Amino acid sequence: MRVLAKDILEGKVTGEAEVSGWVHRIRDMGGITFVILRDRSGILQLVFEKKPDLTLESVISVKGTPAANEKAPGGTELRVSGLEVLSKAAPELPFQVNGDVSKTGLESILDNRLLSLRNPKIRSIFNIQATIVEAFAGFLRNQDFTEIKTSKLVSTGTEGGTNLFQVEYFDDKICLAQSPQFYKETLVAAGMERVFEIGQVYRAEKHDTPRHLNEYVSLDVEVGFIESEKDLIELEKGVLAHIFAELERKNKKDLDAWNATVPSADAVAKAPTVPYDECLSIVNAEAAKGKNPGGRIFDINPEAERIICEWSLKENGVDLVFVNQFPRRHRPFYTYPLDLGDGKASSTMSFDAIFRGLEITSGSRRHHDYQAFLEALPRFGLKTEDMGGYLELLKYGCPPHGGFAIGCERLTQKVLGLTSVKEASLFPRDRKRVAP
Amino acid sequence: MRVLAKDILEGKVTGEAEVSGWVHRIRDMGGITFVILRDRSGILQLVFEKKPDLTLESVISVKGTPAANEKAPGGTELRVSGLEVLSKAAPELPFQVNGDVSKTGLESILDNRLLSLRNPKIRSIFNIQATIVEAFAGFLRNQDFTEIKTSKLVSTGTEGGTNLFQVEYFDDKICLAQSPQFYKETLVAAGMERVFEIGQVYRAEKHDTPRHLNEYVSLDVEVGFIESEKDLIELEKGVLAHIFAELERKNKKDLDAWNATVPSADAVAKAPTVPYDECLSIVNAEAAKGKNPGGRIFDINPEAERIICEWSLKENGVDLVFVNQFPRRHRPFYTYPLDLGDGKASSTMSFDAIFRGLEITSGSRRHHDYQAFLEALPRFGLKTEDMGGYLELLKYGCPPHGGFAIGCERLTQKVLGLTSVKEASLFPRDRKRVAP
Repeated sequence: MRVLAKDILEGKVTGEAEVSGWVHRIRDMGGITFVILRDRSGILQLVFEKKPDLTLESVISVKGTPAANEKAPGGTELRVSGLEVLSKAAPELPFQVNGDVSKTGLESILDNRLLSLRNPKIRSIFNIQATIVEAFAGFLRNQDFTEIKTSKLVSTGTEGGTNLFQVEYFDDKICLAQSPQFYKETLVAAGMERVFEIGQVYRAEKHDTPRHLNEYVSLDVEVGFIESEKDLIELEKGVLAHIFAELERKNKKDLDAWNATVPSADAVAKAPTVPYDECLSIVNAEAAKGKNPGGRIFDINPEAERIICEWSLKENGVDLVFVNQFPRRHRPFYTYPLDLGDGKASSTMSFDAIFRGLEITSGSRRHHDYQAFLEALPRFGLKTEDMGGYLELLKYGCPPHGGFAIGCERLTQKVLGLTSVKEASLFPRDRKRVAP
Repeated sequence: MRVLAKDILEGKVTGEAEVSGWVHRIRDMGGITFVILRDRSGILQLVFEKKPDLTLESVISVKGTPAANEKAPGGTELRVSGLEVLSKAAPELPFQVNGDVSKTGLESILDNRLLSLRNPKIRSIFNIQATIVEAFAGFLRNQDFTEIKTSKLVSTGTEGGTNLFQVEYFDDKICLAQSPQFYKETLVAAGMERVFEIGQVYRAEKHDTPRHLNEYVSLDVEVGFIESEKDLIELEKGVLAHIFAELERKNKKDLDAWNATVPSADAVAKAPTVPYDECLSIVNAEAAKGKNPGGRIFDINPEAERIICEWSLKENGVDLVFVNQFPRRHRPFYTYPLDLGDGKASSTMSFDAIFRGLEITSGSRRHHDYQAFLEALPRFGLKTEDMGGYLELLKYGCPPHGGFAIGCERLTQKVLGLTSVKEASLFPRDRKRVAP
């Protein structure tokens, strides 16, 4: 029966053992040959008395006896008595699996996903991501949230009609959902009260940047009976602190591979909530102190995101900032208005979470009152007759509610310090890439 | 601070308490008024000394004092001292939330999702489904599987070119994935070895039946280093037994609402594996015993699925059957061939799981050997140049592997005995339905 490399290294198997995996490295020493075998648990040195006929990345199964060798990785090697080649790899590999990938170009990594993922450092990105998904769900289930799965085929977008991919649906044309916004609100109002969804969303945005994907995994949350966006910020702090703690507990090796650390629960608790206007003041004041101050910053753009996180790291010891009270003009029609004293309700109960210089979350309290919503529509150039199901949502009893979404790939990117968000997607989609 | 209905019923709160939720029922007794409040935890009787101005399904928040009353649901009621209406529901409801839904038509339930989901019996379907998803993932994580998220935007289908929805992707036309087949195999071969994915898949099938959805949640599994489909059947038995045990543990009330029971772990272990040819013989023999025997059954069609499960319930005490060794002509090109002794390898290492008369799973060992695969292609009318990425998958070291997928909605349907699979989808898509 097959055992894993780590079972041998941890001394769980002492007699004859069978291991299987990929040929990671071959070192012919004249008399004997060392082969490094890689399986899902790690690597193990195999010792062959006679040179085996192997190519790199072939899949093999070997029998042998463990023996201590302080020069072997992990201090133990397997002296091979029998070899079976399960699948021979072509000798010319289009991607070097066992090399240092730190200087490999993104396009090469993505074009050769089958091979690039075999590199342990690249693989570790997706160990991290699996824990993020698991911890996100685990924390919310403990808080009495129900996991939902909602349709990604919708007749209209919830963020307005732009940036939608069209689908030919029998004789109809419909769209891929930009967000489960409408559905998660519906399910809160349908009495579920607390829901989360882990699913793909689609944005037909044309720009090709290190922070954008045209298809990404959105970690969505919606919750009823809240007072303001501050309840949501507290909830997200809980979610993030739990995710970071789980990464620390389960993925130490993967974090180490990228020299990455995660904020402690204490640090997350100290993340400040900064109102939008104050955030802009801080950002401009900080920018003015810099060596090359540019023009005035008028919005929370990527530069502002970077500066406010640097400021928070300096001031609060954590590079996580919640910016709230965005002006109404920056937020979608369903955002709950907030009157900051000018009588115009020109602000909103909304927030972004910015982590290590990148927006990872957008959230808000939403409209729940039918009449107030009807009155707000003209401010967005919207008419009652365009709102369809959205009005139904508020018509038959809808609790005060709100929610947020964390971009799964962006969070993965920032945990590990990856250059591009595309590195954090197994099979990313951008304007040019639809394969593999 | 808000507490839940069940906190009051369980005696966790004794002094003044605040509860919030929906107005489920109003009973005006002349002097006093009973209002049944519904929140995510259950229902609670409220007692008003003065008749409140309320409509059914409005969202309210009340303060009051718990008092024993054996006539109240759960034996405790709340004597109200303060009421706030958070959201008033329109007086005319298009769907009766608090009624008996057993005779309500499917279209009405789906057209009025916001309201139909408020009915506790309908809501319970999705409590069951949330546990299915959680237990599926939990079991596999314990077996060292990694959760993956793969793109649903693909350039070609893996089951052949039919039944694909087309997407306008910038200047290109691509498709919605019918299955994560190619990606899950790629990730096994990329060294992850054991992966699972919970995600939507899309089938542009025109038929509108109680067993079909055009978008459904597929619970996908792929695992390396297996010998045959029998390893997969054992794995699926483990998955199902765990899901059923978790449903029994967490969702007793939801199962009871539908008079539903789940098979015990012992029963799942006894589920037989019946080769395709033998299955057809049994089905025809059983059909011949029936009162109205029809013509000979030549395939595992819906009628055969029903009969083989009835047979197994009679013979083995469990209405779960694994049918294996499907003929090659019935399975996709990537299925691993099996020679049953005729030298033609006309059978395959494949299986279906049939539960309570419905196919819930299809699975197989897959080709992993590059040469053998090249030789098999012409039998499927396929050419090397059409295979693109699929050949790459086998070219650089691919372990023997296989996998299966469980239809999440079909499993939910059969656990509860729902008439249509559409009842088990929050927002189902069929040929005519793209909203809500």
